[in-house]
Amino acid sequence: MINEEYKAMLGGKSVIRELSEYATARGKEIGYENVFDYSLGNPSVPAPPDFAKTMVDLYEHGDPVAIHGYSPSLGIPSVKEAIADSLNRRFGTNYTGNHIFPTTGAAGALAHAMRAVTKPGDEIITFAPYFPEYQPYVNGTGAHLTVIPADTANFQINFDAFEAALNPNVQAVLINTPNNPSGAVYSAETLKRLAAILTAKQTEYGHDIFLISDEPYREIVFDGNTQPYPANFYANTLTCYSWSKSLSLPGERIGYVAVNPSATDADLLVPMMGQISRGTGHNCPPSSIQLGVAKVLDETSDLSVYETNMNLLYDALTSIGFDVVRPGGTFYIFPKALEEDATAFCLKAKEYDLILVPSESFGVPGYFRMAYCIDTEKVKRSIPALERFAHEQYGLN
Amino acid sequence: MINEEYKAMLGGKSVIRELSEYATARGKEIGYENVFDYSLGNPSVPAPPDFAKTMVDLYEHGDPVAIHGYSPSLGIPSVKEAIADSLNRRFGTNYTGNHIFPTTGAAGALAHAMRAVTKPGDEIITFAPYFPEYQPYVNGTGAHLTVIPADTANFQINFDAFEAALNPNVQAVLINTPNNPSGAVYSAETLKRLAAILTAKQTEYGHDIFLISDEPYREIVFDGNTQPYPANFYANTLTCYSWSKSLSLPGERIGYVAVNPSATDADLLVPMMGQISRGTGHNCPPSSIQLGVAKVLDETSDLSVYETNMNLLYDALTSIGFDVVRPGGTFYIFPKALEEDATAFCLKAKEYDLILVPSESFGVPGYFRMAYCIDTEKVKRSIPALERFAHEQYGLN
Ligand SMILES: Cc1ncc(COP(=O)(O)O)c(C=O)c1O
Ligand SMILES: Cc1ncc(COP(=O)(O)O)c(C=O)c1O
Repeated sequence: MINEEYKAMLGGKSVIRELSEYATARGKEIGYENVFDYSLGNPSVPAPPDFAKTMVDLYEHGDPVAIHGYSPSLGIPSVKEAIADSLNRRFGTNYTGNHIFPTTGAAGALAHAMRAVTKPGDEIITFAPYFPEYQPYVNGTGAHLTVIPADTANFQINFDAFEAALNPNVQAVLINTPNNPSGAVYSAETLKRLAAILTAKQTEYGHDIFLISDEPYREIVFDGNTQPYPANFYANTLTCYSWSKSLSLPGERIGYVAVNPSATDADLLVPMMGQISRGTGHNCPPSSIQLGVAKVLDETSDLSVYETNMNLLYDALTSIGFDVVRPGGTFYIFPKALEEDATAFCLKAKEYDLILVPSESFGVPGYFRMAYCIDTEKVKRSIPALERFAHEQYGLN
Repeated sequence: MINEEYKAMLGGKSVIRELSEYATARGKEIGYENVFDYSLGNPSVPAPPDFAKTMVDLYEHGDPVAIHGYSPSLGIPSVKEAIADSLNRRFGTNYTGNHIFPTTGAAGALAHAMRAVTKPGDEIITFAPYFPEYQPYVNGTGAHLTVIPADTANFQINFDAFEAALNPNVQAVLINTPNNPSGAVYSAETLKRLAAILTAKQTEYGHDIFLISDEPYREIVFDGNTQPYPANFYANTLTCYSWSKSLSLPGERIGYVAVNPSATDADLLVPMMGQISRGTGHNCPPSSIQLGVAKVLDETSDLSVYETNMNLLYDALTSIGFDVVRPGGTFYIFPKALEEDATAFCLKAKEYDLILVPSESFGVPGYFRMAYCIDTEKVKRSIPALERFAHEQYGLN
């Protein structure tokens, strides 16, 4: 018999995907260049040519039986070592290849990390605003996701609400920095305070609390800043990474979990993720793509366009009169809507062919997200539409 | 806290993987060419050059943002349609692209198919001998795997035992033909009888029973025969396929579930698998590999070496005095061991550098599997070792 639970989920389509489909359909009517499609976090800058070159080289000159052969179930050792070395160079960590579990993107990384450190019925805490796919990821484990209300002043962590929510059933805390959708970059101070609270609570509760740190936007940080590395602040950290954004490779499905060597049972966690993979039929990412990405570990796409777009939009939005926190990274901005009901606000924006994502599914009412991983030229053309929208609908000028 | 259940699984390494690792280590001592490594089902013939050519072409000339962009969550429509068309041409079916769910190999296909048609606590029946990874796949769903004893006369289905085991809690039946490890090809007669029983039981129990048909060896059939297509015998069939074996692409992790258009809720099942993917972080196979494989759907590697090897081994084994059913396909053969304890038998074989897999983990005592996806020249060199082993240890000559 078909599974009624999954059947019931069919209603719950992603708001973002629906808006993106609307934008595509609208594009067929009026020309996609005329739709200011800020819906989807699909990188718009090409991957660095070295990635394709490496893949071409593998496919042309590699031994086909090796290139196309099964990856060992915990990943290709040389690839894992290259990833560990790259992290160690950049963040002063001491990973070995054995601490790295290659995954199909950040989605795969999160799914494995969560299963490794929680069991059904456990509680995982995250902070609003958060990536909406966390709900299905956590539901899939059988754990429960508790969302801490946003710190809307600067989208760091609302520590009072966090401390009030902590309880012995919490086995993991999930953060995402740089943050989708707010663009906030958690500061060293935020990470230090978070670590201190978790350390104290581990002692109080007598069990480990793991920090699952989702970092696909790690390299997209503005103003010459960098993202402090969360695992350097807290031993029990599982770092979830993806090359979807930094190398513009979302469709190649490649990322990893890095287990902090100082975490409890650090040497068991990667083999456990291998067992988790067996049960979900997930298995390793393709051997070819593991080998390919290992050659471009220290590269990124040309990410400067995102900063250009951010500055254009931030200046425009503030001058129009929007209340908005300046993003420190990512390719998202998260302004306050001009009315309380963000969904109603975004519906009105559609009439100006502005495709904005209402904030409800990010766990905060009254905001909206713009994914500005689009051409700068289109960002510029969208500004008059934003002005008209704010003026005609809300009297701003 | 780390998950104790997955931790407990760390002991349970795959017997096949362990033997394969032993073979590799032994190869470092005496030269791998001297190890008669029949452990692993890793295809030995190269993928057809068209696959690499297609990938090179995509990486060299494709629009990088499109090639590396997210696949729609149910797969790339043009790829799904090409797969449906290919199946329809070959098997007279009437799939559309909407009935095809691209997956990361047969492992991914099985994991999605099982979750779509069972819920935790349900029973899934399979037939010995069976692929040992079925245990973790089924455990991962929360269902229970019931194994029907083998029909050792010809490795079709032991229908008496099957009918005795059927009960209303059975929601799915899992078959694998051509079969790993026996090499048996289920006949039209077997499939007809299976379908008749399932049809009757659906009525008796008042609920659907899905047939999950695992077919990664579909194209590896000997003597000019073909595998009758199971979905043509039974409406509620989910066909799980992989190009791991037919195109020698196991490391590329690419396959699909095809939902029979006549199945109950046929139009819901693929979208449900999309929801299942969200929860396991599985997501679609890489866009590039979906696009690449779509261009070589009707090709295979040069599979003739497997038939050559099978004939050599079958003749040698029978002339030595082994009791063995002649395989109809795959690259496995499954002879009776020369003593009751197959593990003890395979341990002795190791002294002759013959790496044979004991049958216990396939759900049958007293047999062993040889994966003859190796060079023909090595198969030939292994025959004197087999003869010596059988003679010195068991007095055969
Ligand atoms: C915060 C966050 N986490 C995880 C993911 C999933 O990343 P991937 O495509 O690498 O699976 C995304 C994708 O947009 C994201 O924004
Ligand atoms: C019978 C059977 N089913 C499924 C699989 C898994 O196939 P894939 O590598 O495509 O996931 C295998 C692999 O050996 C197999 O033999």
